[in-house]
Amino acid sequence: MKRSERLVDMTKYLLERPHTLISLPFFAERYGSAKSSISEDLAILKHTLAANEDGILETVAGAAGGVRYIPFLGKAHSKEYLADLANRIEDTERILPGGFVYLSDILGSPKDMLRIGQMVATHFAYKDITAVMTIETKGIPLAEAVSRFLNVPFVTARKKGKVTEGSTVSVNYLSSSSSRVAKMELPTKSLAKNSNVLIIDDFMKGGGTLTGMEGLVREFDSKVGGICVLCETSHADKMVDDYISLIKIDEIDTEKSVIKTSIGNFLDKTDFNRF
Amino acid sequence: MKRSERLVDMTKYLLERPHTLISLPFFAERYGSAKSSISEDLAILKHTLAANEDGILETVAGAAGGVRYIPFLGKAHSKEYLADLANRIEDTERILPGGFVYLSDILGSPKDMLRIGQMVATHFAYKDITAVMTIETKGIPLAEAVSRFLNVPFVTARKKGKVTEGSTVSVNYLSSSSSRVAKMELPTKSLAKNSNVLIIDDFMKGGGTLTGMEGLVREFDSKVGGICVLCETSHADKMVDDYISLIKIDEIDTEKSVIKTSIGNFLDKTDFNRF
Repeated sequence: MKRSERLVDMTKYLLERPHTLISLPFFAERYGSAKSSISEDLAILKHTLAANEDGILETVAGAAGGVRYIPFLGKAHSKEYLADLANRIEDTERILPGGFVYLSDILGSPKDMLRIGQMVATHFAYKDITAVMTIETKGIPLAEAVSRFLNVPFVTARKKGKVTEGSTVSVNYLSSSSSRVAKMELPTKSLAKNSNVLIIDDFMKGGGTLTGMEGLVREFDSKVGGICVLCETSHADKMVDDYISLIKIDEIDTEKSVIKTSIGNFLDKTDFNRF
Repeated sequence: MKRSERLVDMTKYLLERPHTLISLPFFAERYGSAKSSISEDLAILKHTLAANEDGILETVAGAAGGVRYIPFLGKAHSKEYLADLANRIEDTERILPGGFVYLSDILGSPKDMLRIGQMVATHFAYKDITAVMTIETKGIPLAEAVSRFLNVPFVTARKKGKVTEGSTVSVNYLSSSSSRVAKMELPTKSLAKNSNVLIIDDFMKGGGTLTGMEGLVREFDSKVGGICVLCETSHADKMVDDYISLIKIDEIDTEKSVIKTSIGNFLDKTDFNRF
């Protein structure tokens, strides 16, 4: 196969398998090419991704070595996207009763899920996350998008029992928006012991739901590798302190019909110096 | 920019934007290259994807023309994947009370969502779908996966009212598994009029939930462009007749601990002759 054809196939192959080590002999056999040619192909791929700041091709040396595609979105791309997103969310039509914000269009948009997935996966690229956790319902698209780019499974906690998932482990937590004790649960077999879990949700006010998920993670003898939310509100006392937010709702007033947004702490907290 | 570098970038650019027309002048400007060189690049891309039967590059002629990447998974790839999936689902550990099947691991697996999304998008590639609809909770990962490859938004119907999504439109439907009338709803602003909607869900017994979603689609002055389920059970009377299923549960018996599966009607109903 010619170099040009190999590059097309190799790019698609690697993009579909993020964070997965692919050996040089695998590609050499796939294309019937010498390993030296494959190495040159990979060097082209690596430097093209790096030049665009939208992906990393990592080389692992040695007998068990190969290459690994790491989804990565550079700071300029991330900033541009987040500024646009903050602007789109700052729309009085989105204000819902109770200080909530209508986000279903964003959570259902493949373009937004692509960028958000890439950005969150950039932040956690080297944090050895082995599973993503969210809670039904609106966190699910985010969890799936991030799971795709970290290439690890995601699990969904539920707020009430369903008969269709077998045995579960449950925890009580203090729901900060309603100030009452609530219950969430996860199927027993859905999360392996010793997982390193990234918790993700769409909206954080006090963080009560997030602490509930932290409790669930501990029940599975696992640890919390990170917490990330799409939107945080700025005024409430937070029950969690170490988290990443993409968007900050600086002000929301249902009666006066005011909503003010800005970019969350994501840009400051992310190490973009991999390029 | 060199051809080799252009091909890497172009492949990534197109894969991230399925079903989107990209003009030749756009690429010519992006790479500072002649349109004739870009045309040659695209011919290489097109024939490499076609040779692997895992994607189509469509050329649109004329002044407003360009190229469009259509996700597509050939019959051999689809059959191989579905045989493996049917085999994985045929596991007595998955049997849940009430004749349900534990599928959360598959619905939370990025590798499965990739293949399932590509396959369903293959079937509906030329059906002018403008939105994907599902119902909470387990259909959401499927809807997102398909939405990604068709590059159209997805919407999530809910079984009960939530205060956090504003005004809704609701319908009653006959839940065939419980033989009672239930209610589902969708936020008023989530679906545009005259949409052509692909309905997707994880599990079909009688199809009552699917008819509920058909009713919702009509309430939004839209039409149903197709129905697709991950698993169907074979024995119940179906309330819908025109649907695609990936996996068929031929037999499930909780007491005897028996589950038998096979490939659904997907392979027979899909036109793979685009290659």
